[in-house]
Amino acid sequence: LDETSIVRLKGARLVGLDWGTSALRAYLFGGNGDILAERSAPSGVLHLDRFLPTDAAHARRETLFEAALDDVCRDWPATIVSQLPVLACGMVGSTVGWKEAAYLQTPAGTNELAKALTSVKRANGSVVQIVPGVCSYGVAGASLPEIMRGEETQITGLLSAPKAANMANNDDLLIGLPGTHSKWAQVREDRIVSFTTFVTGELYALLTNHSVVAKTETKSPHLEEAAFQAGLRLGQSESGEAAGGLLSSIFSTRSRKILGELKQEEQPDYLSGLLIGAELAGVHRVLAREKRKPADFAAVVLAGERGLCARYQSACRTVQWPRTEIAENATARGLWSVARQAGLVG
Amino acid sequence: LDETSIVRLKGARLVGLDWGTSALRAYLFGGNGDILAERSAPSGVLHLDRFLPTDAAHARRETLFEAALDDVCRDWPATIVSQLPVLACGMVGSTVGWKEAAYLQTPAGTNELAKALTSVKRANGSVVQIVPGVCSYGVAGASLPEIMRGEETQITGLLSAPKAANMANNDDLLIGLPGTHSKWAQVREDRIVSFTTFVTGELYALLTNHSVVAKTETKSPHLEEAAFQAGLRLGQSESGEAAGGLLSSIFSTRSRKILGELKQEEQPDYLSGLLIGAELAGVHRVLAREKRKPADFAAVVLAGERGLCARYQSACRTVQWPRTEIAENATARGLWSVARQAGLVG
Repeated sequence: LDETSIVRLKGARLVGLDWGTSALRAYLFGGNGDILAERSAPSGVLHLDRFLPTDAAHARRETLFEAALDDVCRDWPATIVSQLPVLACGMVGSTVGWKEAAYLQTPAGTNELAKALTSVKRANGSVVQIVPGVCSYGVAGASLPEIMRGEETQITGLLSAPKAANMANNDDLLIGLPGTHSKWAQVREDRIVSFTTFVTGELYALLTNHSVVAKTETKSPHLEEAAFQAGLRLGQSESGEAAGGLLSSIFSTRSRKILGELKQEEQPDYLSGLLIGAELAGVHRVLAREKRKPADFAAVVLAGERGLCARYQSACRTVQWPRTEIAENATARGLWSVARQAGLVG
Repeated sequence: LDETSIVRLKGARLVGLDWGTSALRAYLFGGNGDILAERSAPSGVLHLDRFLPTDAAHARRETLFEAALDDVCRDWPATIVSQLPVLACGMVGSTVGWKEAAYLQTPAGTNELAKALTSVKRANGSVVQIVPGVCSYGVAGASLPEIMRGEETQITGLLSAPKAANMANNDDLLIGLPGTHSKWAQVREDRIVSFTTFVTGELYALLTNHSVVAKTETKSPHLEEAAFQAGLRLGQSESGEAAGGLLSSIFSTRSRKILGELKQEEQPDYLSGLLIGAELAGVHRVLAREKRKPADFAAVVLAGERGLCARYQSACRTVQWPRTEIAENATARGLWSVARQAGLVG
């Protein structure tokens, strides 16, 4: 680090940690919530074994979290970092995390999250605060029990973004967070009131990497648009050739290839369209229980990995949802937002 | 082999091979289609590498099939086996098999299959006959393209079973073949007229072995009946808490466990019920396109692995389908039936 960088980092006010199952991302925030620096490491809560000290066969689990945190911050001056409050979200608060941060029941927003932080005291005496997850038992018979951990912070960040603040009505949003386990949440008056999870990303990965039905070594370097759209149409539909449902439609990834209707390099995008189509149809039916539809919301906002959000945006357009917006840096914004609300930063 | 066994094997009239992706099963049939002996080996068409000769880096593919066939028959006297016709079904006729046996279009029954055998001449001059698969493009817009390979022989066998022959009307059956890729076929006048595939078994295996959402090391030694039934009800339903569809329901395997509603050892049977429920609901919708329901058929017959058939039978009962029957030894019967129709045996 050169002199200028150090001067700049001296303005830091918070260390924010997005600590998931497979990765850890650290943000150093300035006084306005601006990101001064960020680093990431493959130190997800299930991948901390590399911090096991060689001389101790059974290290206490806490020491692994301590070591991973020190490691991800190691490029930043310890004299600066050691003075800062630390706020973490994600699987770090699960039963396999550093310390369990119990789920808050919906409705929950920034205010409720900030009041329910879980503290972990480090060996050096400083404290790490952990954002709770959110759960929802919903109306009896109407909703499956649901849980999120990390996404509540992402949603909080999305609500605090300038773009969302400019919306005509920030009180009634439909928020999509595509990923391994996609979440779709309804937000009213800045609180998450209900949400639904779809295992879309995980199923896509399992099927393309391990299955007989859709595993392929030949991946296309670009989006196979026609195959994606064909999959999407099938996934959206609930009658005609889609009558057998998803378990049947998935098999068409294989049968269409064997019968020459689909090229090998088109299989992954066909399957992706199929699963995303089924997810969007599911969101539609979930909303229909309350006699609502995507167009009834002030806005539909997506957040998550950029390429995946773009793919969902295109899918939403195809199935004629209202125009979706993509929010950037939602988790980082959310960490700042919760920290400010909790009084961790001035 | 003792003297009595050899005398018995001298009555053999056919070698039948059920040759799939992961396993090879050989039957030695007597003059009435009775099974005199059977053997199985892990010599599926994708697992023949162990027959690669050590001195030849690039053996011709055919030699591996020859070696696997000799190996599975090695307990039987060569003087007997070498004189017999050989009939094979399954993936051995696929593009990755011994020789491709093109798919027959539906409607197809024993007669059509027997007329379309593909011959492979062995190095020793004898011939192996391969049963074709069956495909279906269905009515435009009404059905996905479908393929089967091996199941056509299973269905043929099921139709020739004494039990099926005793039925009031063998001409109108609904046949379920649970497995990695379950098939449900409609049979009219002894021909497969249409069928639908469900990736139920493969998805169950992927999710319980590799997923975040349902992987578990704790498997129950017995069926967790309550969990299975709860999954089944959810999988069957298309509204209320099931409104999100299968991608959403699958996640409840995890959320219910984390929220204490489901024990770890109950997760696999909950998921199994969920997927089987979704499959049966899919079959129902496929039939509904033709304004039919399971009760409209002369009988609903299951064939396949015994424990899995029992599980499906119990599921069919729960969702109030008509009483299902389980057919035994369907593939072996089918091989005999096709061989007789083709004139391979007297």
